Amino acid sequence: MSKAFKPATKLSLDDLNKNIIDAEYAIRGPIPTKAEELEFQLNTSAVNKDLPFNNVVYASIGNPQQLDQKPLTFSRQVISILQYPDLIKQREVLISSGLYNDDAFDRANRLFSQIGKSIGAYSGTQGIYGIRETVARFISKRDGFPSDPNDIFLTDGASKAATYLLSILCQNKSTGVLIPIPQYPLYTASITMYNATMLPYYLDEETNWSTNAEEIEKTVVESIANGVIPRVIVVINPGNPTGAVLSFDTIAKIFKIAAKYGIVVLADEVYQNNIYYKDVEFHSMKKVLRTLQRDHQGYENVQLASLHSTSKGVFGECGQRGGYMEITGFTDEVRQVITKLASISICSVVTGQALVDLMVDPPQPGEDSYELDKNERLTIHNNMKERGFLLYETFSKLEGIQCQKPQGAMYLFPALLLPQKALEEAKRLNLLPDEFYCLRLLETTGICTVPGSGFGQAEGTWHVRTTFLAPGTQWIKDWETFHKRFYDQYRD
Amino acid sequence: MSKAFKPATKLSLDDLNKNIIDAEYAIRGPIPTKAEELEFQLNTSAVNKDLPFNNVVYASIGNPQQLDQKPLTFSRQVISILQYPDLIKQREVLISSGLYNDDAFDRANRLFSQIGKSIGAYSGTQGIYGIRETVARFISKRDGFPSDPNDIFLTDGASKAATYLLSILCQNKSTGVLIPIPQYPLYTASITMYNATMLPYYLDEETNWSTNAEEIEKTVVESIANGVIPRVIVVINPGNPTGAVLSFDTIAKIFKIAAKYGIVVLADEVYQNNIYYKDVEFHSMKKVLRTLQRDHQGYENVQLASLHSTSKGVFGECGQRGGYMEITGFTDEVRQVITKLASISICSVVTGQALVDLMVDPPQPGEDSYELDKNERLTIHNNMKERGFLLYETFSKLEGIQCQKPQGAMYLFPALLLPQKALEEAKRLNLLPDEFYCLRLLETTGICTVPGSGFGQAEGTWHVRTTFLAPGTQWIKDWETFHKRFYDQYRD
Repeated sequence: MSKAFKPATKLSLDDLNKNIIDAEYAIRGPIPTKAEELEFQLNTSAVNKDLPFNNVVYASIGNPQQLDQKPLTFSRQVISILQYPDLIKQREVLISSGLYNDDAFDRANRLFSQIGKSIGAYSGTQGIYGIRETVARFISKRDGFPSDPNDIFLTDGASKAATYLLSILCQNKSTGVLIPIPQYPLYTASITMYNATMLPYYLDEETNWSTNAEEIEKTVVESIANGVIPRVIVVINPGNPTGAVLSFDTIAKIFKIAAKYGIVVLADEVYQNNIYYKDVEFHSMKKVLRTLQRDHQGYENVQLASLHSTSKGVFGECGQRGGYMEITGFTDEVRQVITKLASISICSVVTGQALVDLMVDPPQPGEDSYELDKNERLTIHNNMKERGFLLYETFSKLEGIQCQKPQGAMYLFPALLLPQKALEEAKRLNLLPDEFYCLRLLETTGICTVPGSGFGQAEGTWHVRTTFLAPGTQWIKDWETFHKRFYDQYRD
Repeated sequence: MSKAFKPATKLSLDDLNKNIIDAEYAIRGPIPTKAEELEFQLNTSAVNKDLPFNNVVYASIGNPQQLDQKPLTFSRQVISILQYPDLIKQREVLISSGLYNDDAFDRANRLFSQIGKSIGAYSGTQGIYGIRETVARFISKRDGFPSDPNDIFLTDGASKAATYLLSILCQNKSTGVLIPIPQYPLYTASITMYNATMLPYYLDEETNWSTNAEEIEKTVVESIANGVIPRVIVVINPGNPTGAVLSFDTIAKIFKIAAKYGIVVLADEVYQNNIYYKDVEFHSMKKVLRTLQRDHQGYENVQLASLHSTSKGVFGECGQRGGYMEITGFTDEVRQVITKLASISICSVVTGQALVDLMVDPPQPGEDSYELDKNERLTIHNNMKERGFLLYETFSKLEGIQCQKPQGAMYLFPALLLPQKALEEAKRLNLLPDEFYCLRLLETTGICTVPGSGFGQAEGTWHVRTTFLAPGTQWIKDWETFHKRFYDQYRD
C-alpha cells in the first residue's frame, strides 16, 4: 500500500445514464420533498417551529393508511398467521378470545397449502400457482370470459409490471408510447428511462376528461408518418389523475386502433374498485376485448396487459406491494421474454401475493368474517365518496378553480385559472404557475399536493392534483381560506 | 364498430428491446425450469409419473425456507404483530399462553413508533428513517467507523439495489463493468440489459478461488486502451458461487485500483454472516475503505455501495424481500439521481424493511427472546456448516470432480473433469458439457443444480453450482451413485 498514486475524481452527472437523469417523477418531486422537510422541522425540537400550521396533510399521494384508513381486519388476520404459523396451534383459544375469526385460519391453511412451507421462501417467477388460479377465477367471474392462471403474473404493486413491460417493448426513439395527458408520471418516467418517444393523446377536460379515439388515431397516423412506430398505448381506467371512467364504446374504439396498427394495450386498472356513482360502470379492457373477439372479425391479434394492485380500492395496502398483471394475446416467444425478465428479480414479495388472493376472494356470506369485512369495505368506500364530493363541492364554489366531478379513483385534478399577477410572480420566482400555487398552499397550510405539470396538461392550462383521502374537514376549510386570500392578493 | 379493417400482426422478438432478449439468468434457466416441469409431473395425478425419483431437490437456488429451514421465531412474532396490531390489546394473554415473548411486543411498538400508523402505508423513498438509524448503528458497531442513516437505502432484497446502481452507472457499450468470473448471474444479466461492456476478472480456482488484484488492474488498463471506461467493479464477498472470503489485504488492493482509476465499487456482501471457519474472517469493504482513508492518502474520492439482504445468513427470508444498500463517497448530485430512481418505485416493501431491523438488531442478553433466538441462529448456522462439509467431503472422494473447501456463502462450485465421451455426447445433444451433466443429474435423481456456464468459468473448464441447504443425506448419496454411474458410462 506504500506506492503513491494520483487519485481519480468522483463521478459527475456527465458520467451517468442520461435517460435516468432526465426521468421525472412528480409524486416524489420538489413539492412533496419540501413537505417532508417541513414535517421534519415540525417534529424536531432543535429546529425553529415557526410555521403557520401544526402538521403536514399529504394530499399528494394515494396512500390511505398513512392517513386514517384502517386495514381490512380479515386480511391482516390471515397475513399475521402466515407470518407466524405457531398461531395455528392455539386456534381455538385465539378464536374464543375474539382475536381471530375461524375463517382466517381456514384461509391461512389454504394459502399455506398453495405456498408451501413458508412465506419466507422465494416463489416461482410468476408467483404462487394456487393464488394465480384464484385470480383467474376472479377475472373469469368479473368478465364472464375465462382467464388462465398461466397468463397471470403476481407483481410488486402495479408499477413493477408497468416498468417490466415498457422496458421490453421500448427499443429506442423510434418506439412510440401513447399516453393520456394528464397521466400518472410513472409512464412518462419510464418512457424517458427506456429512451422511447412519448406520443401524448389529450383527454378532454370539458367533457369530464373523456378519451377521444379519433384524437388517438390521428396521433398514431402522424407518428407513423414521422418514422416513430406506435408500439404501446397506455390506458388508465379509472383515470389517474382525472378520475374519469371509460365507457364500453370508448374502450372498443381504442381496441380497434390497437388491432389495426398492432399496438399493445397496457391497461392500468388499479382503481377498478374506486367507482362512486351508480350510473358509472367499470368495464375491464379484457372483457371488452373478449366481447369484440366474440362478435367481430379483426381483433384476434390484439395484445393486452392489464394491471391491478392491492394498494388502491378499499384495501389501500400500499406498503405491502401486492399486485398482478394478466397478459393476453402475446406470442409464446414474447411471453418467454416477459417471464425471463421477471425471473431476474426472482419473485415478488410473497405476503403481497397472499394479499392479492385476499383482495380478489373476500369472505363470503355465511363465513365468520363476512359481516365485519363487508361493513369495513363499505365504510371505507363511503368515506372516500363523501370526501371526494365535499372537496369537489368546495372547489365548485371558489373563484378561479374549475373542477370536474369525480367518477372514480381517489383524486381531483381541478384547473387553476390563475390571475396575471400570480403568473408574473411565479415567473419572477422561476417557478411554473402551478408549482407556485402548490408551494404557497404547502407553506401556508401544510397541505401537500402535486402541480399539474407533473402529470401533463394542455398548453397554457394549470392544475393541481389532490387526493380526497385526508380525514376531517378542517384541511378543506384551510385550503378554501388560502385560496381566497391568494386570489385577493393576486387578483388582476 | 362496423367498418372492416386489416388487422396487424402480433409482435415478434424483432420488435422487442434486444438487450433484454439477450440477458440470461441461469438461476431460473433451462435446468430449473425443467425441474419445475418434473415436479408438476410428480404432483399431478393426470400425468404419467414414471420418473426414477419421488421428489425434486432444489439445490439450484439459495432458498433455505423452501427446504427445511425454519424462520427465526422472534422475527416472525414481531412481524405478525405489525401485520395485526390488535394482538397488542391482548399482550398479557398472549404472553402467558406462551405464544409470544414480551420483547416481541416491545420491538413491535418501537417499530410502530418509527413506521407510523401502518405497515400498509408507503414509506419514504429511502425507507423508514428509524430503521435506517438502526442499520447505521449496526454498521458503526460492525466496522468501528461511523455510518449515517442518510446513506442507507432500504431495498427489495439486494438485487434491486444492484440493478438500480448499474442502470444509473451504465451509459452504453463504452461503460465497462468489472465482474468476477465465476459470478452471480444477476450481474451479467444487468450488464447486458443496460448495454454496457462486461470486463471479466478471473478468480483463481487452484488457490480457493482467490482474487488477484494484479489481474484486475491488467484488465482495467487493457480496457482503457480499448476505449472502454471501467466504471464499476462488482465484488462478491463471500463469493457466490465460489464461497471464497476476501482478506483485508486483497480488499485494500481493490480499493487502490478503484481510487486510482475512479471506479465505483459495488460490494455484494449478502453472505457476510455465512462464514464457517474460525480462521476465516469477513471484512466489510466499508471498514477497509475507512481504514485506508484514515491511514493513507489518495482514497478520499472512492465511491462504494455495499449491499446486504435478509434472504441469506441465518435469516433465509427470501420471499420477504428485505435488504439495504449503504452508499459512501458519492457526490450530492449523483446521490440525488440514485434517490430519484428509487422514488419511481415509491418504496420497498415495509415488512421487509422491518425484517432488516430485526436482522441487524437481534434480541440481547437479558431480553426474553435472547436464548431461543441465539439457539435458533446457532442451529441453522451449524446445519449449514455440516451440510457444506459433508457435501465437500463426498465430492472430494469422487473421480472426476474437484472441489474447493467452502469458506462462506451457501454454495459449492466443483469442477467437473468430464471424460471425452461425455463431451462428445453433450455435443451430439447440442448441450454444453456442464448442462449435459446437470440435466442427467436432474433426470436421474431429481437433484436440480445450475451449470457453471451460467456463472462464467475459465475456458475449457466445466462446473456445477449446488447449494448445501437441502436436508438429509439421501440426496448426497443419490448424487454419488449417479456420478459413479455417469463416469462408468462415459469413462474414456
